[in-house]
This record gives sequence, structure tokens and C-alpha cells, in this order.
Amino acid sequence: MEEKALRKLLAEIKTGKITIDQGIEELKELPFKDLGFAKVDTHRELRQNQPEVIFCQGKTPEQITEIVKVLARNSKNILGTRANPEAYQAIAQVFPDAEYNSLAKTVVVNRCSESNGLGTILVISAGTADLPVAEEAAITAEVFGHQVDRLYDVGVAGIHRLFAHLDRIRKANVIIVVAGMEGALASVVGGLVDRPVVAVPTSVGYGASFNGLAALLTMLNSCAAGVGVVNIDNGFGAARLAAVINQKREIQE
Amino acid sequence: MEEKALRKLLAEIKTGKITIDQGIEELKELPFKDLGFAKVDTHRELRQNQPEVIFCQGKTPEQITEIVKVLARNSKNILGTRANPEAYQAIAQVFPDAEYNSLAKTVVVNRCSESNGLGTILVISAGTADLPVAEEAAITAEVFGHQVDRLYDVGVAGIHRLFAHLDRIRKANVIIVVAGMEGALASVVGGLVDRPVVAVPTSVGYGASFNGLAALLTMLNSCAAGVGVVNIDNGFGAARLAAVINQKREIQE
Amino acid sequence: MEEKALRKLLAEIKTGKITIDQGIEELKELPFKDLGFAKVDTHRELRQNQPEVIFCQGKTPEQITEIVKVLARNSKNILGTRANPEAYQAIAQVFPDAEYNSLAKTVVVNRCSESNGLGTILVISAGTADLPVAEEAAITAEVFGHQVDRLYDVGVAGIHRLFAHLDRIRKANVIIVVAGMEGALASVVGGLVDRPVVAVPTSVGYGASFNGLAALLTMLNSCAAGVGVVNIDNGFGAARLAAVINQKREIQE
Amino acid sequence: MEEKALRKLLAEIKTGKITIDQGIEELKELPFKDLGFAKVDTHRELRQNQPEVIFCQGKTPEQITEIVKVLARNSKNILGTRANPEAYQAIAQVFPDAEYNSLAKTVVVNRCSESNGLGTILVISAGTADLPVAEEAAITAEVFGHQVDRLYDVGVAGIHRLFAHLDRIRKANVIIVVAGMEGALASVVGGLVDRPVVAVPTSVGYGASFNGLAALLTMLNSCAAGVGVVNIDNGFGAARLAAVINQKREIQE
Amino acid sequence: MEEKALRKLLAEIKTGKITIDQGIEELKELPFKDLGFAKVDTHRELRQNQPEVIFCQGKTPEQITEIVKVLARNSKNILGTRANPEAYQAIAQVFPDAEYNSLAKTVVVNRCSESNGLGTILVISAGTADLPVAEEAAITAEVFGHQVDRLYDVGVAGIHRLFAHLDRIRKANVIIVVAGMEGALASVVGGLVDRPVVAVPTSVGYGASFNGLAALLTMLNSCAAGVGVVNIDNGFGAARLAAVINQKREIQE
Amino acid sequence: MEEKALRKLLAEIKTGKITIDQGIEELKELPFKDLGFAKVDTHRELRQNQPEVIFCQGKTPEQITEIVKVLARNSKNILGTRANPEAYQAIAQVFPDAEYNSLAKTVVVNRCSESNGLGTILVISAGTADLPVAEEAAITAEVFGHQVDRLYDVGVAGIHRLFAHLDRIRKANVIIVVAGMEGALASVVGGLVDRPVVAVPTSVGYGASFNGLAALLTMLNSCAAGVGVVNIDNGFGAARLAAVINQKREIQE
Amino acid sequence: MEEKALRKLLAEIKTGKITIDQGIEELKELPFKDLGFAKVDTHRELRQNQPEVIFCQGKTPEQITEIVKVLARNSKNILGTRANPEAYQAIAQVFPDAEYNSLAKTVVVNRCSESNGLGTILVISAGTADLPVAEEAAITAEVFGHQVDRLYDVGVAGIHRLFAHLDRIRKANVIIVVAGMEGALASVVGGLVDRPVVAVPTSVGYGASFNGLAALLTMLNSCAAGVGVVNIDNGFGAARLAAVINQKREIQE
Amino acid sequence: MEEKALRKLLAEIKTGKITIDQGIEELKELPFKDLGFAKVDTHRELRQNQPEVIFCQGKTPEQITEIVKVLARNSKNILGTRANPEAYQAIAQVFPDAEYNSLAKTVVVNRCSESNGLGTILVISAGTADLPVAEEAAITAEVFGHQVDRLYDVGVAGIHRLFAHLDRIRKANVIIVVAGMEGALASVVGGLVDRPVVAVPTSVGYGASFNGLAALLTMLNSCAAGVGVVNIDNGFGAARLAAVINQKREIQE
Repeated sequence: MEEKALRKLLAEIKTGKITIDQGIEELKELPFKDLGFAKVDTHRELRQNQPEVIFCQGKTPEQITEIVKVLARNSKNILGTRANPEAYQAIAQVFPDAEYNSLAKTVVVNRCSESNGLGTILVISAGTADLPVAEEAAITAEVFGHQVDRLYDVGVAGIHRLFAHLDRIRKANVIIVVAGMEGALASVVGGLVDRPVVAVPTSVGYGASFNGLAALLTMLNSCAAGVGVVNIDNGFGAARLAAVINQKREIQE
Repeated sequence: MEEKALRKLLAEIKTGKITIDQGIEELKELPFKDLGFAKVDTHRELRQNQPEVIFCQGKTPEQITEIVKVLARNSKNILGTRANPEAYQAIAQVFPDAEYNSLAKTVVVNRCSESNGLGTILVISAGTADLPVAEEAAITAEVFGHQVDRLYDVGVAGIHRLFAHLDRIRKANVIIVVAGMEGALASVVGGLVDRPVVAVPTSVGYGASFNGLAALLTMLNSCAAGVGVVNIDNGFGAARLAAVINQKREIQE
Repeated sequence: MEEKALRKLLAEIKTGKITIDQGIEELKELPFKDLGFAKVDTHRELRQNQPEVIFCQGKTPEQITEIVKVLARNSKNILGTRANPEAYQAIAQVFPDAEYNSLAKTVVVNRCSESNGLGTILVISAGTADLPVAEEAAITAEVFGHQVDRLYDVGVAGIHRLFAHLDRIRKANVIIVVAGMEGALASVVGGLVDRPVVAVPTSVGYGASFNGLAALLTMLNSCAAGVGVVNIDNGFGAARLAAVINQKREIQE
Repeated sequence: MEEKALRKLLAEIKTGKITIDQGIEELKELPFKDLGFAKVDTHRELRQNQPEVIFCQGKTPEQITEIVKVLARNSKNILGTRANPEAYQAIAQVFPDAEYNSLAKTVVVNRCSESNGLGTILVISAGTADLPVAEEAAITAEVFGHQVDRLYDVGVAGIHRLFAHLDRIRKANVIIVVAGMEGALASVVGGLVDRPVVAVPTSVGYGASFNGLAALLTMLNSCAAGVGVVNIDNGFGAARLAAVINQKREIQE
Repeated sequence: MEEKALRKLLAEIKTGKITIDQGIEELKELPFKDLGFAKVDTHRELRQNQPEVIFCQGKTPEQITEIVKVLARNSKNILGTRANPEAYQAIAQVFPDAEYNSLAKTVVVNRCSESNGLGTILVISAGTADLPVAEEAAITAEVFGHQVDRLYDVGVAGIHRLFAHLDRIRKANVIIVVAGMEGALASVVGGLVDRPVVAVPTSVGYGASFNGLAALLTMLNSCAAGVGVVNIDNGFGAARLAAVINQKREIQE
Repeated sequence: MEEKALRKLLAEIKTGKITIDQGIEELKELPFKDLGFAKVDTHRELRQNQPEVIFCQGKTPEQITEIVKVLARNSKNILGTRANPEAYQAIAQVFPDAEYNSLAKTVVVNRCSESNGLGTILVISAGTADLPVAEEAAITAEVFGHQVDRLYDVGVAGIHRLFAHLDRIRKANVIIVVAGMEGALASVVGGLVDRPVVAVPTSVGYGASFNGLAALLTMLNSCAAGVGVVNIDNGFGAARLAAVINQKREIQE
Repeated sequence: MEEKALRKLLAEIKTGKITIDQGIEELKELPFKDLGFAKVDTHRELRQNQPEVIFCQGKTPEQITEIVKVLARNSKNILGTRANPEAYQAIAQVFPDAEYNSLAKTVVVNRCSESNGLGTILVISAGTADLPVAEEAAITAEVFGHQVDRLYDVGVAGIHRLFAHLDRIRKANVIIVVAGMEGALASVVGGLVDRPVVAVPTSVGYGASFNGLAALLTMLNSCAAGVGVVNIDNGFGAARLAAVINQKREIQE
Repeated sequence: MEEKALRKLLAEIKTGKITIDQGIEELKELPFKDLGFAKVDTHRELRQNQPEVIFCQGKTPEQITEIVKVLARNSKNILGTRANPEAYQAIAQVFPDAEYNSLAKTVVVNRCSESNGLGTILVISAGTADLPVAEEAAITAEVFGHQVDRLYDVGVAGIHRLFAHLDRIRKANVIIVVAGMEGALASVVGGLVDRPVVAVPTSVGYGASFNGLAALLTMLNSCAAGVGVVNIDNGFGAARLAAVINQKREIQE
């Protein structure tokens, strides 16, 4: 309940248009309505290209279609993650211009792409096998309105490949580092820059990588400053964190 | 080595001011000098109040004194972390104006405190026992030149205490959430704001908290967008990440 | 062996109707017969709609049919859990009125549904993916004779959705909280009510959720009072615990 | 904000005693004040002997004294847990009638002991070494106003000791089972009764008990119905859960 | 090389029947031949029905056939474990009288079944789902020449079922306890008897049973005397241990 | 209640010496009395030197003295384990002939030492640091009436030391293998003999030995036949298992 | 960029053959070119039979073909690891002389096989199931130009089989030990020789082998000197380590 | 028993100098004597400065003195590891020229220091806190007769410090990398050189470093070729592995 509505309500009580009992009844609902969430939502609305997100994994095509139909009423942009081809078909029925990326397993409807970002988000990946997670991150950042630079296959075992691109690394406003196996890349990149590094461990590896645990622990223990870690294989989450960091906003005083 | 210096060097070779052998000798150093690290350091120098940091744990008072003497030549600001009283005494011999915080176990010399930050960094803690980590984070952020707001003892078991401060939460540019036991606070805060949340699990708890593992996993699995996790009890690391996010900078195009 | 039967036996010995040797033979069986289990069973019988339960997972349709045929002699109500369509068919051959819920994977025969419960059992779930476990819990509670209220998709990342239903939460006699990922919902709910909360971690999540371990630890470390935890994905067990809590009974003095 | 106060406020607006602007200002605070927490607190107050609880571990005697002084204004009953003798002294300065239990490490002020419970809470422990946790549970339940029965040293390795007390086990309204090492006692007790069992794993054991992990897993995997688990060594938490289960209340329709 | 053969060799050297060089050549082989392994093997031979064992899992039918052909030269009895139907067919080509047990996944050729055992080996299982492991144990013990008694489906949640068979439990010379989930059965049985208990955790369970880890830890922490634990699901290993315990032998003085 | 007593009771009922009501009263106690535990205890009594065992760890000297006084009424032999010097003093006050072994931390009163064993129990240890556990095992076996042979410091890194004692290894009726670090000794010994091997992992080691976990897993995965594992550092438990294996008994048919 | 080339460049600047701007352009590339990586590559080139390696797992046949085509320009030798038959076909299209080993899952093109090794690399495996890993190691070592000896199926449970080959074990310059289950073989071999042992745990085993964790911990805790461990199932990595140890080289002073 | 001795024995039998019975008696000892261990020991003797090693941790000063006295008869060089000052005093009583390093906790007697090494062993450490482990490694390598180069405090967070010493890194014959926290240094170094890297994880770190587990997993998952891992904090073991790699030897054909 916005202040305007509240003012109107009190005025109606004052003028006797509604009784005190009726006023109390309506105000009882106030605590949750006015928790400010509405404001958040409005705020979100202001950034017109903020997409609605559907986590497709574990949902049937029917469920997805139903959800997308609801979203279609209000949203111009849609992001489906962990989507298999069936999920894509389900979305494409409602949004025929949806685009599918089979590597990142994303479905994107990006009709309105004003920029929300201050600078570039750079996505770095260690190996070829990390690409699905890296692409999920890159595409997510793009559909949320950010400019993305991709720097792939630059793992620490051949560190000169990484250093050959120092300029691009230095130019980024936020860096997402995607790495499996021993995950050392986040520490090395974190040591090279003075900007936030979002580290994404991947489940790439075998044996004692324990499905990403090794890379996760490596990243959490990074001795470089400015590294924040997200869940294993969570390219989407990494991009969301990078996006809120890179987001244009007026600082409230 | 900057391009200007390089150009000068080549000109001197061309004009015979220095010999080719001398030029080679100087260029041999190039790979490491010009890796850009120098630039980083110079850049760091520009922000005058960037402190030098000493991780005191496991160092003898003698070692600390020796390190501080070296730092005293160039630095105006010093931050000692995980410092016991002996470590403080060792620093205070060189910097008599050093201040000790026995809760956060920090030693601070803050002679030059220009602001580096865009907005406020808010430090939220769940329980009283999380204070040492929260304070380490808050003090670190301050000595790195950021404005800090503290909101303590607002765990999710009494969630109204948290909600009573929604305005301060919404106003922050970056939020550090410090929580042990089940660590659920990061998810709740992450769901309330549209700004980056740096989550710090603490080793507070007993039994199946497994020294912070429970809170760590909770935070990594947070379903809220915009949450980055640092190591258990790593208040310093959280503040460093918050600081690079909140840092004033010109975006390079 | 009930006291009445024992009295009859001793009387027969006294009157010589049976010999002492015969009496001893019969009494040898006594220890286990009279351990009181019979009483439990009789007691169970008194609550007419107490169903027989079949854990279908890992059983062949043939085995299930055989079990159900035996149960059919004494039971009016049947609950099959973790049942695939084949298991349902096997039960439906004996109980043609059996109903299958493909989401909860339950088969229910509920011919006699007197109420056993004192109040309402509320089942809250965090996300859509937690529904199978939540429904297993809800259906189990119902077939055991309890009134169930369902409140789904109210995870902590959008905490206003939860608060919009405070009345239903406050009205419940027992609350089952079903949540995967970071599992923080149990703590938040536990902080809002003064009634028992049965927390069910689910294996929903990925990466460092480690198949439900993260949610499990979160719930065990809950700082809210009145939270009891059951095994990962164990909707049935949660409902059984909620049922014995909510069960009508005369307190023995 | 209670309905009465709200009604008064609206009446004052209606009568012009305060302006609409003043009313809005006051109502802005409403969301958090009226979240219903007040009601909870009032409700809590109605049960006069509900104690205030202080978790003493990690607090200095000075901090404890300060906290107790505040509590002394409103509370008649106090429960200090994980209290060493110094903590006890700190509390006893304010409450000279405080009683210390060095085994359970509890400090109790129990000036007002009306019963809150429906029936008896039975605390069962497996071995002598589990007594501190069992006593913490028993004392907590008592100070919260419940009748407690204690049955100690009845581990499964000598199962006849347990069975010798079947009557007391059957009579209880809620049962707390405290066990370390292999923790099998919870399953056995759960199989004997039709009432809620709160299982508390303890860190008693060595080697592969891994500080209570073995007992914790055993209890979570219990095949008996009606078992809820709390954190390792958490006697307090077990008693709080048992208390809300055993609590007198009018069921809301 | 037996002493007799050695004596003969030295005599031949002495008499010049073989040269010193030839003697050295032959003695070079001595260290390994005479390590006593031969004795073991001969000893094994004496017990005629000692079967040859083939672990079939991960072997192709061709490999199995080849192995069995070699074994067929010397062995009358064969035990194939973890055998699928294809493995059975492969063995049956060489041993047409081989018998397949699809539950235990064993293939048995038992042409010579003299008894090797002192008493009965009792195999107890907690639930129906533990049967494959229990049967692997029972069949292994039988084919190694021991008398086996089976007592299935007597888990601790309904402990009266177990107690109804105390006589059979007390009569056994060695007891194998097979249990998944919380694995408490081993402790209860170990507390009832004064004979060796071989405990086999099974991977039966879900969630926090972690594929048998919970049962394994329970059994290792058993507070009952006389319990030895083998690997998860290792029915074969349990039977081998039970067999060497139950084995007829002359004690060497 | 023995059959004889039962027969007497029934005869008294028959003859009217006691009433049926009195008989019922007495028989009510029957279930637990006659569970056969008495038989076990009597059986235990027959082996005169069966000691009473006190686990001293975590008990105060006062508690120990009290326990020992009770035991002194019936027992001639006493075994105290995990006993520090204070615990020894407490026992020695009641049993002045008690002997303390500071390495094994055992207190032994062995007044009656008839043999219970069929053959020799051999205790093998890998390294010097494993001696406390090995000695706890050896002394426990001795005080339970078994002949013990000790073979220490024969780890697999210098495997010839082990092989130099093949005769003693082969002669033993049961072998206890005590090893920390990688725990490979159990597999090697298990491969050399045809007798039961009781494997005891010790917490000796550092780093990735994880306090005995490495040795525990090694032993559970042993590919040798006839190996049963007990808890980490559990020398007492190993000896109890070895004792019941080595125990003289008449096999019941 | 070698010194010679650098000297030439500076001379050209000096003589005006190239402008300073052109020189700067070329020198900009210097940092990474001259980091010494080039030298490594040249060095690698000198050993003509150093193969290019493709990790095939997770790559489509199309991707593999594309990679191989690039490699075909410069390399005479190719090693594909973790290759299924489709991967082999993809390589064979470009290299028709490629050889596939379905056990080791390797594809080898070995056109140029000069020796790089100082002595023999011996590959020892414990069981038949470890063969795929052992063969991956052996083939890798061969294609890198080393002489390989294979000693398979010599696990510690039948230790005489190992000892029968002491000569071959002693003769090797580097030894790779491949073992699953309890992994004890590495310790035993490490105790027999004075040469480097590369230990490879395999995921062979079941239950508490936890997919190779047991063997991994065993090997890390080996009490024998000279054992280095690689990742679970990493036959390729073991061979690469063995190869750099066994590699001919001139020691730089 | 060497062949020469064997030949002599057989000749004495042939000539009747000893009887066949005497010969058999002597040959009985053969299997273990001639297992080749003697050869190893002799071989070891040839390298005169091979030290005897004492693991001092957990040994009393008396035990150490006793051991050292025995060693003093044959050895010129002694290495005591994990030695506290008391252990040093105990050794210094027998070897007054023993030198104590309080950082590495080593005691060294190095009277005879011929070189055993082919080239230099380089010890690299990531941070100051890793020095104790690094020094244990360096001193061990020295006392085993190898030339050691030390490169400390060159962690990946400031990677230019590492690169400033590429020449020393490239010149080493074997490299020991000592690193705690995230342990990424081993991968980076492994990617720079073509020589064996022995990786030692340290327990340096906090929180999710889990006492070295994080660094251990990182190193095991290293994507660089030629990395072998030893146990956490095992500087001694790393040096022993480096020493056998770097050891002068004649390759046997």
C-alpha cells in the first residue's frame, strides 16, 4: 500500500466515508502489502529489459508453457535456463522469436535490450569443458542488459595464454572466472586486477575433483583480494551477482 | 614500462645515446616490469589511504616489528588483522598512534582517510557471537576508505528485528552478511535487495555446524540473486570484496 | 497375551484342565507375545483409519501384489509410497478404488476416514521442485486421518509471499516445512510460530547442495526453537512425526 | 501495534485530534510493529513461567550480568545454558536464588512454576557419558513448565534394562532420546511407542563416531515412525521441541 | 620347497649328481616358493570343497568363460559373485550344473559339499531390501562348506520380531547381521549373544544414509562387544570372515 | 525366571499355595526376567575369570571408586580402560593389587586366570606409535583369559621384518592387526593366513590420515578374506571380538 | 623472442630500417613471447616424438576431427585419451594409421618413436579391474618415448605373486603403481625399492571405497619413502610424471 | 645371503665340511635374508652420507636418546624431524655437534656430505606461514646429499614475484612446491617447467581450507603435467621423493 492510498484511506475515515471498523480491516493487510516489496517491483519495472527467468530443469513442457503464457502478459524479455530442446519448443510456442543455445542450455527472448551496465562483464573460462557454464553466465549477463566480453580456454597450466590478454582483463568492470579441476584460475586473475571477481567452480574434472568440490574449496581459499564465490556450475548465479555489481544506479544518500 | 619510456629507450638506441647491449639489458627486465603490475601499484598509490595489510596470526612480535618498519617508509595507513595484544604492542612501537580493537583483533593506523567509496557498505550480523568477524569486516572496509553502517544481532529466528531496519538495508550500496549456525540470513537479505550481498559464514555454532560448514553450504546454495560467498570467518576478505565493488573508478572504454 | 487369557490359563492349571507341562509350554511364548506390542497393535486398531503402509521402491509388481493381498484381509486403508505406475497397477488389481498421485508417487486407498487429529497440519514448501516431497507428506498425513493445509512456493528469497499467509501459519497445530537448496525456510517459520516444526530437507538443488546435505545441515543448526528434522526427501517420515504429535489421545497419568 | 491502539489512532484522525500527516507518520512504523510478533510475545507472557534464556558460552561474566539485569525487570524465571561457574556467579549476583547444575551446566531461576504441559516428557539416555546433555534437556523442560521423568543408562547393548521400564516409556506424552556412539536407542524406542520421539545425538564416542556424526546419521535414518532429530549435543533444543509439542493450547479453528 | 625336497637337493649336490651351479640356480627360486604360500595352498587343497571364487562384475562373458575353463581343471566347486545372467550363461557353458540365484547374483557349482564348519552360521537381515546382500552371504557360507540358518526381516523398529527367535540367535556359532538405513540391528544382536557378530552395512536407504555410510558408522561405533565390520554391501566378505571363524582346525601349539 | 522356578510357581497355583492373582502379579515380571539375559549372565559366571570392565575416560575418581566398590562384591577380576593415574589410584584403594600400565592406560586386577581360549591371540602392530592401542588389546585379551603373543613394529614399508615371523603368524588362532597411517598391514597379514584377522585402525598419522579415517577405509576395503574391522583406536573392542572368536564353548546342536 | 632476434630488431631501429613506431609495435608483443614459453615449446620440438594429446571425453566427433586436423600440420605423433570408438573414428579419418586400444580407451599415432627415456618405466597393477588405468599409463609412457615394462595382477592379498618379480621391480627406473580397493600395493612396493614410485588410486572397489577415496588416502599416507600420488584413475597423469622423471636431459649448472 | 656365500655353503656340503642337516638349518633362514633387502641395505651403505631418520614427534627424550645411541654405532649422519627443543637436547647428548632448526623442527648431524644428487632441488613456498614445511623439505634434501635452492613467498596472488625468478625455476632438476590455502602454486609452476614437481599441501589457512584438504584437492586435480602429491605438511616425504628422483644411479639394463 503506497502512501497515496494510505492518505486516501485515512481521509475516508476522517470524512466518515468508511467506518473505523472498515478502516481497521483494510489496515490489517497493511504490514505485508507495504513491506516495500512493491517498491522493489516497481523499481524493477523501470529497467524495462529486466527479463523474467524460468529454471526449466525438472519442469515438464506443459508446466513451462503454462508459466510462459503468464509471463507473456507483462514481460518483453524471457530467460530460460537449464533448458533441453523440449523446454525450448514449449517456450517457442508462445514466443516464436525465442533463441536456443544448446551449449549453454538457455532460451532467450530479448526484445528490448537497453543497457543496464556501467562497464563490461568479462567471462573467463579455464578449459573447453567449462564452456556450458561460462556461456550460461555470458548469456544471462547479456539478457539482463550488460555488455559481455568472452575469454575462453586460458587455464593456468599454460599461463601465457592468459597473460596475452591482460588488456581485456584490466578493462573489465566485473570478471566472472569459470573453472573446474583445480580451479586455480580465480586466484591468478584475482591477483592481476583491482576489480570484483565472481568465481564459479564447475563440476568438470574426475576422481578427487569430487564433482566440483576441489575447485569450490580452492576458490573459497583464494589468497587474492576481491573474490566472491557462487555455487558449483552456477553460471546463472554468477551473472546475476556480476549484474547487480555492474548495475547503473543512483546511490541513495 | 610505459610506452613513453619504451619510446624514449628506442630513441636513445637510435641516436646512439645508449648501446644496443645496454638496450637489451634494460629490455630483459621488460617482461615482468611491464606485465602491468607496476600500473596496478601506481594506481594503488593514487588512492592515498590504501593501507598495507599484515596478517598477524602465526607471526612473532619480532617478525611483525620488522615488517612494520619496512612498511613505515611508504605507507601512511596500516591494517593488522588477527592480532593479539602482543602483535599490537609490536606495531605500536613503530606507529604509536595505532589503535587496537580486541573484539575484531585488528590494529589500525589510519592517518589518511580520504573516501574511496561510491556509497555505504552495510555490515549485518546474525548473532552476538558473530561480532568479531563482523567487526573485522567493518574496520577493514573503513580503513580502505569506505563509509560503513553496522546492523547487528538481527538473525532470522526473530525476523522482525531485521525488518525494522529495511530502510538502512535498502540504502546500502553493498551489503556484507555475517552469520554462523544455519546462515540463513544471507538468503533473506538477498531476497530483500537489488544490490550485491557478500556472505560470510562464521564458525559460530556447535554439533552439526561443523565449524562453519553448515553456514557455508547454506550461503552457497542461496536461492536469492546477487550473493557471493567468501571463506568461513573471513571478515577481511568480505570487506575487500565489498571494497572493490564499492570503489570509485573511471570505467575504461 | 492379555491378562484375561493369562488368568484363564492359570485357572485351567489350577483345575487340572491342562497339565503344568502344557502350561509351561504355553507360557514359554509369553515373553514376546506380552511385550506389550499386542497392546500397541490393538490400540492401533482402535483408530479405524490407520492405514497399512507399503514402501514400493525396489519391490517388483509381483511382490507388491502379494503384500497387498495379505493386507486386504485386515485393512481398509492402504498407503503406497515411492510408487511408480507399475506399483500402482499392482495395488489397483486388489484395490480397484486405489488412487494414484504421480507427483507424490503415492497410492492411496482411503475407505474409512475418521479424524485422528487435534488440529490442522500445515505443509509449507519453498519451491516448485520440492512439491513431490511436500505432497508425499500431505497425502500421508491425510490418509492417517489428519486435516491438512497446503502452502506452497513460499521460499525465503521472496519472503513477502510467506508473510502474506501468516494467519494460516499461526493457525496450524503442527507445521511441516519442506525445503531444498539452502533450506532456510525452516528457521524463518520456526521463528514465527510457537508450535512444533517438522523440517524436511530435500535433495533439490545442485552443486554444493550435495543432494540435500546443505539443507539438512541448515535445518539441524536452526537457531529457532521447536524444530525437529527428518531424513532428506522423507516426506512420509515428516508426516508420521507430525501425525503422532497431532494425534488425539488420552494422557495417561 | 494492537488493534486497540490502532482503533484509537483512527478515532483521533477522524476527530481531527491528529492530522492525516501525523497519522501516516505513525502508521509507517506499523508494518514491523504489527507483524504479529507482539501477539506472540503477549501470548508468551500469558504463560507466566516462560523463562528468559541466556546462552552463556562465549560470553564474559560482565556481559552476562548486564543481560541478566535487563531481564530482571520483566522475568521471574531465568535459564542459563552452557554456563561455567563464573557465569553462574554473574547471574547469582542479580538473582541470589539461582541454582547451578554443574553436570548440565545450567543456571535456573524458577520462581513461578505453573504447569504448561499436557503430559510427561520422558528423557532417556543411553550411557553415563550422555548425562550432561540429558540433564540439560530435562532441566530445560522443567523450567519451561513441564513434568519430566528421567530414565538413564539404558543403551541397546543391554536392551533388557530398557524393557524393564516399558510402562514409563509408554506413559510419556513426548520422549527425548539422548544417545552417542552408534545412537541406535532412538530407533528402538521409536519402535516401541506411538508418541513423538525427539532424538538428540551426542558427541560421546571416539574414532569413527566423528564427534557425534555417527549418532546423527543413525537417528536421521531411523526406520521407526515419529522420530525428529535436533543438533548434536543440543539438549536445550530437544527440550524446546518437546515443550512445544507437549504445550497446552487451544486449537484455533 | 619342502624340507624333504631341500634335503634331496643337498644330497644330490653332495653326491655330485648335480653341480653347485645347478644347485644355486634351483635355490634361487627358493625364497618365494618356500615362503609358505605353497603350504597354504596345499592346506587349502585338503579341504576338498573349498570353491574357487570369481568376482564377475566388470568382466565380459568371454573373460569369465576363459577363467572358468582354467578353474575347471582343478576345482570341483565354483562360486561366481555379482553375476548377471550373461555371466551365468558363460559359466554354465563350462559347468552345465551351475545354479544361478538372481537375488544374490551368485552362480554356484557345488559338487562336493563336505562340512568345514564347527557350528551354524546365522544370517540375520533387517529389511526386505537387504536380502540380496544377506543371500550373497548365506550362499557364500554354504558353498564354503558351512551350515547356514536364515532369519530375515527382523529390524529394530519392530523389535519383538527379533526376540521371537532368541533361541535360533543363541544357538548360532557365528552371526552375520545385514542391515541398511540406521544399521542398529548389529548393536542389538551383539548385546544379546556371547558369540562373534559380523556386521555388514548395506547401501539400502536414502537421503542421509549416504549409500550405506550411516549404517557403516553405526556398526563401527557399536557399544556391544564382539562386533567386527566389513565393507558396505560386502555379503561375500562377511561370509568369508564368518567361515574362517567357524572353520574346523587343529590348533597349533 | 528359569523353567524350574516357573514350574514351582505353577505347582503352587495348582495346589492353592498362592492365588491366581498372586501368580499373575509374579508372571507380569516374566517378560523381562526371562528374556534369557539371566541365562547369559549365569553362563558368564561359569567362566570364573571373566572380568568386569570400567571405561574410565570421562569419569571422576569418586565415580570410579563408587563403581569399583559395587563390583568388588561379586568380581575377582577387574579391567579399567582409558585410565589415567588418578583413575588407577581410585581403583587401587579398593583393589590394592591392581596393576597399572601407563602405555595402554589399563588397570588390571587378575586374581583368577583360568584359560578361556582355544589357541593363541596374536597382536601385530605396524609402528611404535600404535603401541598404546596394541597393548590395550593385548592386556584386554589376557585378562579375559586368553594366551597372547605380541609382534610389534612390523609395518609394510619394511616388509621383511614381518616375514621373518611367519611361523608365529601362522600359529595364531586369531590375529589382531593394529595399524595407523595407511593401515595396509591388515591386508598383507590377511593374505598370509587362513584365520580371522581383527583389524584396528589407529589415529596415528598426520595430514590426510584424518585421525584414522585413512586406515579405517583401507581396512574396510581390504581385498584379503577374513578381515573384520573395529572402531579407530578401539584396542579393547578388538580384543573382545578376538576373545569371543577364540572362546572355548560347546556348540549347541 | 630470443636475444638474437631482439638484437636484430634494435639494430634495425638504430639503422632506421624500421621506425620507432614499428619497433614499439613489435616489442608490445614481447612480454608474453619472451616469457620463456617459446623456449619451452622449442625445447619440446627438439624431442621429435613428443605427441600432441587430446582429452576426448566430452568432445563430439566433429570437435575432435577439427582439433586433429590442426594438429596434423605440425605433429607426427598423437595421443587421444578417454576415447570411445566414435572418437577413434574421428581421429582415424585424419590419421588412418591411428591405433585404438579399447581397454585403455586410447588412440595412438606413433610415427616417430625415438627414445626419450633414461631407463624403464614399470607399470604395476593390483587387480584385473585396474587394467584400464594401468594400460592408459603404459601406453602414454610409450608414446612419449619411454620403454615400458608391465607387471599386472599382483595385489597384496597374494603377496608372493609380487615377490616373484623382485628383479623386474628392482630394475625399473621409475615405477607406476595402479591400485584400487585398499591401495596398499604402493606402500609395499615403495618399501622394496629405492626409486620413485608414482601411485595411482583407482575407483575400483565398492561400498566404503567411495570411488577411490580409500585408495587415495592410503597412498597419501604411505609410510614408505619416495611415493608421489596423482588423481584417482589418472593413468595419463601418472605416466606424464613418470616421463618427466625418466627423461633424458642435460642438467643446467 | 649373497650368491658367493651360497656357493661357499654348497661347496662345504659337497666336501662334507658341514652336514646336510647343518646346511638345511642355515638355508631355512634363506627366504628372508635373501629377499634382496640386504642388497638394498648394502646399496644404501655405499652412499656414505645417507642419514638415519628419527621421527621425534610423540617420543619421550629418553626414547630418543636410546634410539640415537644405537644409531651412533653405524651412522655418521642423523636427521631428526618434528623435534621440539627437548628432543634436540636428547640427541645433542650423544651427538654434541647436532644442529637444531626451530622453524623446521629438525635436528641434523651432517658429518659426511658427499653429493648424491644429479642437479638442484628447488623448494618453492607460497607464503611465510608455509616456511616450516618448506624448510623441513629443504633440510631433509640437504642432509640426504642434494644441492638445494630456496624460493620463498611467491604465491599466485602476486604472480609477478614468481615470474621474476623463472631462470632459477627452469634450472632446477626437481621442484618441490609447498603451498597452503588454495594451493594453486603447484599448477602454475607445473605449467612453466618440463621437470618433476613434488607438491606438498600445507595445513596453512582457515575456514574452508579444512586443515589442508583444500590445497590437497587442488594439487591432486592439477591440470599441469608432471605433478606428484604427498601428504599434508609432509615436507620430509616430499624431500625423500625429490631425492630418489634426483639421485645418481647407474641404470640397470
